[in-house]
Amino acid sequence: MKALVVYSGGLDTTVCIPALREIGFDAISTVTVDVGQPQADIASAARRASLLGADHHLIDAKQEFASEYCSAAIAFNADYFGYPLSTAIARPLIAKKAAQAALSHGPFDAIVHGCTGKGNDQFRIEFGLRLHAPGIPIRALIREKNWTRSEEIAYAEKVGAPIEQSKTKIWSIDENLWGRSIEGGQLEDPNYEPPEEIFQWTKSPQNAPDQPLECTIHFDSGMPVALDDKKMNPLEIITFANRIAGENGIGRIDIMEDRMIGLKVRENYECPGAVLLISAHRALESLVTAAHERRFKAVVDAEWADLVYRGLWGDPLFEDLSAFCASIQKRVTGSVKMKLYKGSLTVLGRTSPNALYSEADASFDDNTFDQSAMTGMVQTHGMASLLYARLKQKK
Amino acid sequence: MKALVVYSGGLDTTVCIPALREIGFDAISTVTVDVGQPQADIASAARRASLLGADHHLIDAKQEFASEYCSAAIAFNADYFGYPLSTAIARPLIAKKAAQAALSHGPFDAIVHGCTGKGNDQFRIEFGLRLHAPGIPIRALIREKNWTRSEEIAYAEKVGAPIEQSKTKIWSIDENLWGRSIEGGQLEDPNYEPPEEIFQWTKSPQNAPDQPLECTIHFDSGMPVALDDKKMNPLEIITFANRIAGENGIGRIDIMEDRMIGLKVRENYECPGAVLLISAHRALESLVTAAHERRFKAVVDAEWADLVYRGLWGDPLFEDLSAFCASIQKRVTGSVKMKLYKGSLTVLGRTSPNALYSEADASFDDNTFDQSAMTGMVQTHGMASLLYARLKQKK
Amino acid sequence: MKALVVYSGGLDTTVCIPALREIGFDAISTVTVDVGQPQADIASAARRASLLGADHHLIDAKQEFASEYCSAAIAFNADYFGYPLSTAIARPLIAKKAAQAALSHGPFDAIVHGCTGKGNDQFRIEFGLRLHAPGIPIRALIREKNWTRSEEIAYAEKVGAPIEQSKTKIWSIDENLWGRSIEGGQLEDPNYEPPEEIFQWTKSPQNAPDQPLECTIHFDSGMPVALDDKKMNPLEIITFANRIAGENGIGRIDIMEDRMIGLKVRENYECPGAVLLISAHRALESLVTAAHERRFKAVVDAEWADLVYRGLWGDPLFEDLSAFCASIQKRVTGSVKMKLYKGSLTVLGRTSPNALYSEADASFDDNTFDQSAMTGMVQTHGMASLLYARLKQKK
Amino acid sequence: MKALVVYSGGLDTTVCIPALREIGFDAISTVTVDVGQPQADIASAARRASLLGADHHLIDAKQEFASEYCSAAIAFNADYFGYPLSTAIARPLIAKKAAQAALSHGPFDAIVHGCTGKGNDQFRIEFGLRLHAPGIPIRALIREKNWTRSEEIAYAEKVGAPIEQSKTKIWSIDENLWGRSIEGGQLEDPNYEPPEEIFQWTKSPQNAPDQPLECTIHFDSGMPVALDDKKMNPLEIITFANRIAGENGIGRIDIMEDRMIGLKVRENYECPGAVLLISAHRALESLVTAAHERRFKAVVDAEWADLVYRGLWGDPLFEDLSAFCASIQKRVTGSVKMKLYKGSLTVLGRTSPNALYSEADASFDDNTFDQSAMTGMVQTHGMASLLYARLKQKK
Repeated sequence: MKALVVYSGGLDTTVCIPALREIGFDAISTVTVDVGQPQADIASAARRASLLGADHHLIDAKQEFASEYCSAAIAFNADYFGYPLSTAIARPLIAKKAAQAALSHGPFDAIVHGCTGKGNDQFRIEFGLRLHAPGIPIRALIREKNWTRSEEIAYAEKVGAPIEQSKTKIWSIDENLWGRSIEGGQLEDPNYEPPEEIFQWTKSPQNAPDQPLECTIHFDSGMPVALDDKKMNPLEIITFANRIAGENGIGRIDIMEDRMIGLKVRENYECPGAVLLISAHRALESLVTAAHERRFKAVVDAEWADLVYRGLWGDPLFEDLSAFCASIQKRVTGSVKMKLYKGSLTVLGRTSPNALYSEADASFDDNTFDQSAMTGMVQTHGMASLLYARLKQKK
Repeated sequence: MKALVVYSGGLDTTVCIPALREIGFDAISTVTVDVGQPQADIASAARRASLLGADHHLIDAKQEFASEYCSAAIAFNADYFGYPLSTAIARPLIAKKAAQAALSHGPFDAIVHGCTGKGNDQFRIEFGLRLHAPGIPIRALIREKNWTRSEEIAYAEKVGAPIEQSKTKIWSIDENLWGRSIEGGQLEDPNYEPPEEIFQWTKSPQNAPDQPLECTIHFDSGMPVALDDKKMNPLEIITFANRIAGENGIGRIDIMEDRMIGLKVRENYECPGAVLLISAHRALESLVTAAHERRFKAVVDAEWADLVYRGLWGDPLFEDLSAFCASIQKRVTGSVKMKLYKGSLTVLGRTSPNALYSEADASFDDNTFDQSAMTGMVQTHGMASLLYARLKQKK
Repeated sequence: MKALVVYSGGLDTTVCIPALREIGFDAISTVTVDVGQPQADIASAARRASLLGADHHLIDAKQEFASEYCSAAIAFNADYFGYPLSTAIARPLIAKKAAQAALSHGPFDAIVHGCTGKGNDQFRIEFGLRLHAPGIPIRALIREKNWTRSEEIAYAEKVGAPIEQSKTKIWSIDENLWGRSIEGGQLEDPNYEPPEEIFQWTKSPQNAPDQPLECTIHFDSGMPVALDDKKMNPLEIITFANRIAGENGIGRIDIMEDRMIGLKVRENYECPGAVLLISAHRALESLVTAAHERRFKAVVDAEWADLVYRGLWGDPLFEDLSAFCASIQKRVTGSVKMKLYKGSLTVLGRTSPNALYSEADASFDDNTFDQSAMTGMVQTHGMASLLYARLKQKK
Repeated sequence: MKALVVYSGGLDTTVCIPALREIGFDAISTVTVDVGQPQADIASAARRASLLGADHHLIDAKQEFASEYCSAAIAFNADYFGYPLSTAIARPLIAKKAAQAALSHGPFDAIVHGCTGKGNDQFRIEFGLRLHAPGIPIRALIREKNWTRSEEIAYAEKVGAPIEQSKTKIWSIDENLWGRSIEGGQLEDPNYEPPEEIFQWTKSPQNAPDQPLECTIHFDSGMPVALDDKKMNPLEIITFANRIAGENGIGRIDIMEDRMIGLKVRENYECPGAVLLISAHRALESLVTAAHERRFKAVVDAEWADLVYRGLWGDPLFEDLSAFCASIQKRVTGSVKMKLYKGSLTVLGRTSPNALYSEADASFDDNTFDQSAMTGMVQTHGMASLLYARLKQKK
C-alpha cells in the first residue's frame, strides 16, 4: 500500500512515517510545500524523509502563495480578531499542492497528515485534500492514535525516528511568508508574558532603530506594487515588507483565539509584513469607498476571515465574497505614506486618483454648499426616537 | 425675547450673541458645559459672555461624563472606523445639560447653537435638545445665515465681538476628557502630513521616554477601577490614562471619516486614554466571551458606534444595545497588563475569574480529550461546499 | 427658459406646469416613462400635457424595466420588511430615461419633478437625475412651495389645469409592472381595514377561483424563463405572473413602512407577480446554496433592499452587491412547482442540476456515513458555553 | 449499573433499552417529558417502558414550555429560513427536565438518548444534559452502534421489543405544542409533492371552511394574552391558535433545511399556531419600533434562530440576545386584527399605545412640516456615490 505524507519535517509528521509502515503501508512518499518557511526546515524535512526511506518531493509554491493567497488577505484586510490569518491562508495551498502531487505521482492508497484533533489545521488540510483529490482516502494518524506530544516523542525514540530538534523544542512554531505563529508551553497561560526569545522576525520595539523609517506604498487595484520608487512583484514586496516592518518592531500579535472546536487558546504571532501592508491597504480603501460601502465591506471582510479561518478556501461563499471584493479593489489604486518606528506604525498621508473626496465640499471655508438647506434633515433626524421619548415621558 | 446659547466661547458661538440681538433677542443667557475641555477655554467663555452682556452659566459635568458616557464607550469598545467617538459622546451630554439649564433658568424663546450645516454636531446637539427640552424652539444661526468662517470673523470684527484667539487659529479644535480633535486648514488634504504642532496631549513617539511603562489595569464589570494598585473613580482613571498614554506617544489617530451628510473628511484625533483603556477592555473581553458571542458583540459594537456617531444617544435602539452589552459586562472583571513604549501599546497578559479558558482542554500535552472522536466533524466539514465542487467539475 | 417635467399626468406633476410658467419657464417639455402603468394614465398624461401646451415625449421602458430592474429584484429576493420594492425599483429607471431625454432634446435650464418633501421618491428621482444628467439644475416645485394636496387642487382650479380625476381620487396610487401601491386617506390609520375597492390587480381570496392553479416556473441563472412549458421573455413572464397570481388572490401586502425621513406610514401594495416569482426563486436558491452562503445571501439581500429603497441604484455598493449576487445566480437554474389557491401560495417541489443535495447522505436509512464518528463534534459543541455555566454555578 | 433513558416511546429510544441491558446496565429508568405531543404517544411510551421492565417517569412540562419557550419564540419572531423552530425549542426543555429527573431519582451511571448521528437533536439534547447534569456520562446508543432504521427494526424484532407501530411508520414525526415535523421516506426527495396524509394539524386550504375567520390578538409586553375578548394563559392561547389556524389551512411549511452537520434535507412542518402568533407579533412590533431598531432586531432575531437551531438555549449569547429583546418587548403591547381563510393569513389592522406613528406627520395633507426644508437632505443624498460616478465617467 502506498501513502503520501504531507510532510513538514516536524515531530507530528515525522512519526507518521514509521507508524504508517506498522499499519501496512510499505511505499511512502513525502511532499513538502515551500510557502516561505525557513530553508533549514525544508532541508531538514528532505534529510529526515530520506533517512526514513521515503520518496521525497519538494514543491516551491512561494510565488503562487504571494500572488494569490497573500494578495487576497490584503484585499480583504485579513483580520480574525486581530490575527491576519497567516497559518490559515497557507493550509489550503499546501493541501492543493499535496493533492496535485498525489494525483501526479500516485496512485496512492492514502494521503496522510499529522494534524492533531484539537487544532484547526485538520479541518483546513482535509477540506483542501477532499476538494482537490476527491477520490483518495485521508489518514490523520496522530488524531487516530490520540497521541500527545510526549507520546509521539516516546514513540519516535522507540522506533529511532529522527526528531532531535523537535524533542527539545519548547514552543510549537509555524512559519510562512505571511507570518509566524508561536504557541504551547507556558505561553498557553493567558497571563504569562511572552519572553523575547520566541520572536525571530521582529525586533523588540526597544531594540529597534532609533530613527523612524518612512516609506510610501503604491497600490494598483488593491495590490501593493511598489515601495517608494521600487517596483516589486508580490513575493518581493511581502518579503521586503516583512524585513522593514520586523526591523522596526512592528507586527507582534498576542491574542486570545477561539479555535474551531470551541477551545479558547492564547496565541502569539509575528506578522510584520501583513500588518504593514494591510494597514496601508485599509487607509487607501477608506479614501475610495463610500461610507455605506465601507461599512458593508467590513461585514464582508469579517465573513471572509471567518470562512478562511475555517479553511473553506474556494467554497461557494468564498467565490461570492471574492466577486464582491474584486468590484471594490479595482478602485484601490494610489499611494500611502507610512512611518515605522519602534513598534508604532502611523499613516502620514494617502492619495488616489479614485478618491471620493472633494476639497470644495469638505472645506469649512467654502460656501458653494448652502448650509441653511440642511435644516429639514436635522429637524427630522431621530423623528421616531423622539416620538418614543414622548411616549415614555407620558407614562 | 430670551435666548439661551449653548456656549463654548469659540468663534461660532460667540458671533451668535450679537447676531441674536440683531434679530430681536434682547435677553441672552449662555451655558458652558465642562466635559473636560481646557480650563483656559472655560475661563475665556465666561469672560467673553460677560463682555457681550450675557447671563453666563457654567455646569461641571465631568464626573457624569466619565462615569456614564466614557464608561459606555469602554464597554462598547467605541470604534467608528478607528475613531473612539470622543467628540460624539460629549455632544448628547452637553445638549442634555443645556436643555436642563433652559428648563431651570427659563422660560426661553429659543435655544441657540453654533453648529454649521456641514458637520455632525448639528444633528447630535439638536437631537439632544429636542429630547430633553421638547417644547423650546431651536435656532442654528451659523447654518441659517450660511456663514463661512471668514464671514464669521468679518462679522465679529464689524460688531466688535471678542474673538481675538479664534481669528489666528489655524486649526479647528474640539476637546474633552475622552479626546481631542484637530481639523481644518491644510489638514483637510488627505495627503498632508500632520505637523507636530497640532498635538497637545501626546508626545511624539520619538520624544517619548526611552524606558517603557508597564501597568496593570483592573476592571470590574466592564469598567476600569484601578491602575496597578491604585483604586480610582472613572474621572480619575481616565485623566490618569490620558496622562500616561499621552506621555508615551499613544493615541494619535489619523483617518478618513465619512460625515453624516456624506462628506468624506480627513480627521486627526488624540485619544490616549481612550486607546489605552479600550485596548485593555478588548483584551479582557476576549477572555470571558464565547467565540460566537464575541463575534456578535463586534456587530453590536459597530451598530452602537454608528448610532452614537449620529448622536442618537438614548434612542430606543441605544437602550436595547445597552441591555445586550450590560449582559456581557457583568463578566468583564479581571486584570490586563499593558506595556506602553514610544507609540506602541502591547498587551502582556490578561486574567479573569470569569475566563472561558481551560488549560487542560487547550494543552497539546493532555489526553483527557479523545482526539480520534473528532474524525466525523472533520469529515463532514464543508460537506455542501464539496458537493458544489463536484458539480463544477462535472461540467 | 426651458424646463423638462418628469411627467406622470397626476396632480403633483400637472400643477408644476402652470407653476413653472409663473416663475419664468416659457418652454415646457414633458416626458412620461412607460414602466407598465395603466395605458389610460399614459394617454391622459399625453392629453393633459398637450392641453397645457407642453412638448410631450413618451418613452417605452417596459422591456428594460423587466429585464434589468425586475430581474434584479428577483435575484435579490427583493424584500424591504415585506415590500418587494415595486415603486422603488422603477424610480431610477424613470430618472435615467428622463435624464437621457433631457440630454437629447435640450438644452434645458431645469429638470422638474413633482415629488413632495415627505416621501422617498424625491431622493430616488433626484439621485437618478444627478447621476445621469449631472449638469442640469433640478427643481422640486411641490416641495419648494410646501404645497399640501388641497392646496395643489385649489391652485389647479385657479389656473384651470386639467386635474378632474385627481380631484376626486381618494387614494394615492402608483403603478408599474412590478406592483401597485395604494396609500393616503383613511388608509393612513394603521388600524383601518383596507376596503376591497382599493385593489385592482388581485381578486380577494374569497372571490378567487375554487380550483387551485398549479404551475411550474423554470429558472435559468436566477431568472424565470418559462412557465409550465411556455418560454417567455422577462416582460411576458412578469405580466403573466401578475395575471395568474392576481387571479388567485395572491400578492396583497399591508405593512407599516419606515420612510427615509423617519416617518412611519401604513402602506398597501398589490404585487402578485413579484410575490409569486420571488417565492419560487427563494425555493430554488435554497436548493443550490450552501448553508453559510444562504445565510450571508440574506444579509446581502437586506443590504440591497435598503440601498434600493433609498434609491441608490447604480452606486458603488450596489455594483459590489451585484457582483456578489451574480456569483450565486449563475447556479440558480432549475424548476419550482407552485400551487396558487385563494390567497395561499405553496411550493410543492423544486429541482435543479446544481442542487447541493445528496440523497445518500440525507437518508436515515443509509449507513455509508459512520454516525459514531460524530461523537467528538457533539461533545465539544458549546464547550465555552458549558465553561460559562460552570463558572456561574460556582458563584 | 443504572441508566436513565430520555424516552419518547418511539423506535430509536425503545431499542436503547434492550441494548443497554446487553452492555451491562441492569437498572433502567425512563423519563418522558410532555411538551404537547399526542396523548397516545405518551400512553404508549409508558406501556412500552413497563413491558421492557423500566422504571418510568412522566413529567408534564407543557405550561413551562408555553410560557418560557414558545413565548421566547414569539418575541424573537422565530424563523430559521422559514421554520419556526418547533422541534428545536423543545429539545432544551426535554434535556433540562431529564437532567433534573436524573439528579432527583439517581444516582445514574449514564443518561441515554436515542438521537442518530446525522441529525440536530444529538447536539441539542446533549448540550442540555451537560448543562443541567454536568457530572453524568451520556450514551448515544444509536449513534455509537451506527444503526440504520432497518437495523433498529431488525434488532427490536430479534429481542422482542415492542415497536409494532414504528415498524409500519412511513414518516418520521416529531410533535409538540409549537409544531409538528414530518420527514423521511419519499419526502426526502425535494421534488416529491407531500401527500395530504402527512398532515394532522392543518386542513388543506381546499378543505378549510368557506367562511373566513377574523380574530383580534391582544399582546402585552410581547406576549399574546387574549384572543378577541377571551383572556388566556400562554398554554391556552397557543393551543387555541393551533386549532383555529389549523382549521383554516394555515401553517404548512415545506422547505430545504441545512442541518448542523452540513446536510441539506427537505423538511415539512405544520405550525399553525406559531405562524399565526408570530405574524401578529411581527405586525405589532413594526408599529412600535424605530426603523433602525427594527432593522437591527431582524439581525438579532436571525442570530437567535441560529443559536436555538444549534440547541444553545441558555448559553452566554442567548442571555445577551434575550436582554436586547426584552428591552423591546416591554413596548410590544396592543392588538392585531387578522383574517384567516383557506391557507391565507392577512393582517387587517394593528394598534398600540406605544405606536411610533404620528398621523399629523405622515399625512400628505398637513403642512405643519415644512417640506421645503428637505432640499439639503435630498441634494446631499448619495453625495459620495455621485463623486464615484463622476470619476468613472472621466475614465
